[in-house]
Amino acid sequence: MPSEAAMKAAMQAYFDHFNTGDVEAVVALFAPDATVEDPVGSAAHAGTDAIRAAFAAVLATRPHLTLSAPPRGSHGNATAMALEAKVGDLTVRAIDVLTFDEACKITSLKAYFGPEDVIKR
Amino acid sequence: MPSEAAMKAAMQAYFDHFNTGDVEAVVALFAPDATVEDPVGSAAHAGTDAIRAAFAAVLATRPHLTLSAPPRGSHGNATAMALEAKVGDLTVRAIDVLTFDEACKITSLKAYFGPEDVIKR
Repeated sequence: MPSEAAMKAAMQAYFDHFNTGDVEAVVALFAPDATVEDPVGSAAHAGTDAIRAAFAAVLATRPHLTLSAPPRGSHGNATAMALEAKVGDLTVRAIDVLTFDEACKITSLKAYFGPEDVIKR
Repeated sequence: MPSEAAMKAAMQAYFDHFNTGDVEAVVALFAPDATVEDPVGSAAHAGTDAIRAAFAAVLATRPHLTLSAPPRGSHGNATAMALEAKVGDLTVRAIDVLTFDEACKITSLKAYFGPEDVIKR
């Protein structure tokens, strides 16, 4: 299992590449068979091609993430962070939970936010 | 599936009963076959008796929770919240993810925090 620090660094890299809009750098953080469920309750994007297409669509909207609190690790292969994603005049309050493989590649990303967590401001 | 508001209210009730130290009120929020993995990466407590014993032990330390950000819902049967748990002179930065059944009882609780997320202050 990767160290807590390594997993948090990978989560930070995801956050940073997301904010610079670098689709390929984001995709490179994921394992080939990873899944992205954003938001939780929607159909998951599975595998590199689907994940690339999903992030290309999202990043085209030029979202900007800010952390709501310091990121959290775990005693297992997971990390989590509370964040706000600003897209146009909408702010999405979310919590992302990531899991990792032995190579510290992301194997799953789940973004928790509901309709009530999308606010206009 | 319960409404987003109902699941958030149940999560808030968990938070409130935790802070008043009411073990039975906390346990009553969980489904009979629920699991509690706190922290993620440790062995889960499964079922009412194990969950009651786990919370009795935790609440005996008189922890106090504060929210780090507004709670999040989902488009599925889950909610999540970033919080800090103060226990004595230690602060644990955590993110709790809860899932619910049709009756809005908690079916799983996962608390994400790593060794680096326990700070002395």
